Amino acid sequence: MDDCIFCKIIKGEIPSYKIYEDEYTYAFLDIAGDVDGHTLVIPKQHCTNILDCDEQTLAHVMQTVKKISNHYVSDCGYNGVNIINANDKSAQQSVFHLHFHIIPRKTNDGVDGFPHFDGAKNDIKDMHKLLKMD
Amino acid sequence: MDDCIFCKIIKGEIPSYKIYEDEYTYAFLDIAGDVDGHTLVIPKQHCTNILDCDEQTLAHVMQTVKKISNHYVSDCGYNGVNIINANDKSAQQSVFHLHFHIIPRKTNDGVDGFPHFDGAKNDIKDMHKLLKMD
Repeated sequence: MDDCIFCKIIKGEIPSYKIYEDEYTYAFLDIAGDVDGHTLVIPKQHCTNILDCDEQTLAHVMQTVKKISNHYVSDCGYNGVNIINANDKSAQQSVFHLHFHIIPRKTNDGVDGFPHFDGAKNDIKDMHKLLKMD
Repeated sequence: MDDCIFCKIIKGEIPSYKIYEDEYTYAFLDIAGDVDGHTLVIPKQHCTNILDCDEQTLAHVMQTVKKISNHYVSDCGYNGVNIINANDKSAQQSVFHLHFHIIPRKTNDGVDGFPHFDGAKNDIKDMHKLLKMD
């Protein structure tokens, strides 16, 4: 898409710290400077998020997420990774081109890679009735 | 695995609030009570996390993550979802059977679905040298 910043990064119109590229996916460092090694993995074919992407595109993206995660642990001195993804503005998605965040982690690194929630408002039995697929 | 709590849930040895099941995957509500609709998607074939799971298993899990996410938005009154996953104890993984968290989100729901980071410690150029795949 012409006005998508991630599409421009894929085309090289905006420079990026490229980590990996293949036929279907592109990965680069997030420049937010919020945590060391913050990596974004995106599909080359534009889609908004997992809600509208096709299954094959999602599979390609996750293969790359796995490949980079294994590389960070096997080759770069990390012990694990957090994977984070937001879908829709309501879920704090800020760039509307599907992207998975990889946060490389080391034992006792002091990073907190999991969100903090304030407690459920509804009974789990009511939520189960609402959400279960028949 | 005999001592894996998620394998026991799949086998029905421990009860769960099942959301969805197919040949390869199982999804159920997290009973932590931290946020409404907190859902876990797991593969039926035991693996520890994305570092050791095979690509096909990961693809099946993500198909189910996508299917449930679309169901929550299309059928259950939600606008979006956060997807979260931890790999290795260093990344705050607590159950060592691959699982993706789905957090259903509504516009202005007051939930914070993204971790908070304290700032990068190293220069992004140095991180790029360390992490890039050749």
